[in-house]
Amino acid sequence: MSALITFEGCEGVGKSTQIQKLATWLRERGQDVLITREPGGSAIAESIRRILLDGKNTAMTAECEALLYAAARVQHLKEIVQPALERGATVLCDRYVHSSLAYQGYGRGLGTEYVRSVNAYALENFMPDCTVFFDLPPELGFARKKGADADDRMETAGLAFHDRVYAGYLAQKAMFPDTFEVVDANGTIDEIFERVLAVLDKHGLIG
Amino acid sequence: MSALITFEGCEGVGKSTQIQKLATWLRERGQDVLITREPGGSAIAESIRRILLDGKNTAMTAECEALLYAAARVQHLKEIVQPALERGATVLCDRYVHSSLAYQGYGRGLGTEYVRSVNAYALENFMPDCTVFFDLPPELGFARKKGADADDRMETAGLAFHDRVYAGYLAQKAMFPDTFEVVDANGTIDEIFERVLAVLDKHGLIG
Repeated sequence: MSALITFEGCEGVGKSTQIQKLATWLRERGQDVLITREPGGSAIAESIRRILLDGKNTAMTAECEALLYAAARVQHLKEIVQPALERGATVLCDRYVHSSLAYQGYGRGLGTEYVRSVNAYALENFMPDCTVFFDLPPELGFARKKGADADDRMETAGLAFHDRVYAGYLAQKAMFPDTFEVVDANGTIDEIFERVLAVLDKHGLIG
Repeated sequence: MSALITFEGCEGVGKSTQIQKLATWLRERGQDVLITREPGGSAIAESIRRILLDGKNTAMTAECEALLYAAARVQHLKEIVQPALERGATVLCDRYVHSSLAYQGYGRGLGTEYVRSVNAYALENFMPDCTVFFDLPPELGFARKKGADADDRMETAGLAFHDRVYAGYLAQKAMFPDTFEVVDANGTIDEIFERVLAVLDKHGLIG
């Protein structure tokens, strides 16, 4: 069954673990699953990713950052996501346009209108069947991930920034009421996974 | 006198020669002049430029291309152009948002509405005092430049593409009636330069 499911959350929230677990679960039930991520997933998108995550690029403006994420996104959609959906796969994508709304729109203060305008292609053509937002206040996520990726431009932006990002995520429940699902990310891996399955089941995406 | 003057035209039209000549002319009259170019002009913008012009990136979508040009543009504006204008310089910029409207909007067929939406920042904040379009049909430009940059992604796009680009440039006279100036690029370097000076004089930009 063709579907696009995207996963969101602040740093250290455990997205990767849950995505891997879900892919295994779906494959055991005979589904064709593609795991992918933003920014990246294709040669061109990965070269854009390297510019974005390079800790030396401290002069990068918020607008440039938003445009680079949008550029990597559209390339990834057309090169990777669209062909997989067309062959009937379930695509599990780690981050999507909701990250740009949260990180650049709220975190960097660009506003959602600007972020929407540069992401017109994704918003008009590839809205996910379901977005799973792993809800964990940034303080707790940072504690989990301490020490990892210390040079990453996004990781070093500071807690006030990540508090704005978190608020920006919560605001998206109202923006995308039919698809944006908030999943409590407190608990064991198995407890959280059960919540993910319940949400996907509600949307008719796992059966 | 602070001013932003941008220069446009199809490949091989002789922009660089005219820009250098104008810079020399203005400096001889005591003006602070910055010559810059798009895409590029800052470390981040140049790294975006390398992705854009890499002949190996044949899979790049038109939307990705438009977003990368817009990303390099906003970075270049804030890092290079804005500080120069603030110190009172005359900025001569080789290509600007008009190139995106012509190359991605018309040449790649994305349409001007999409290109305008991803270039909202430049269009709202940094419209040039004057845009000089060097008018030469693509057939003649290609003949001039034959053999140069044979691996450049934009150069190898074919004559039909460049015919659309040319039409997209001519259409901008109506989009930007107060600032977009069409200069006949047939003639000797000195003849064309005299036309450039006449246009800038009309806009009160050289005296």
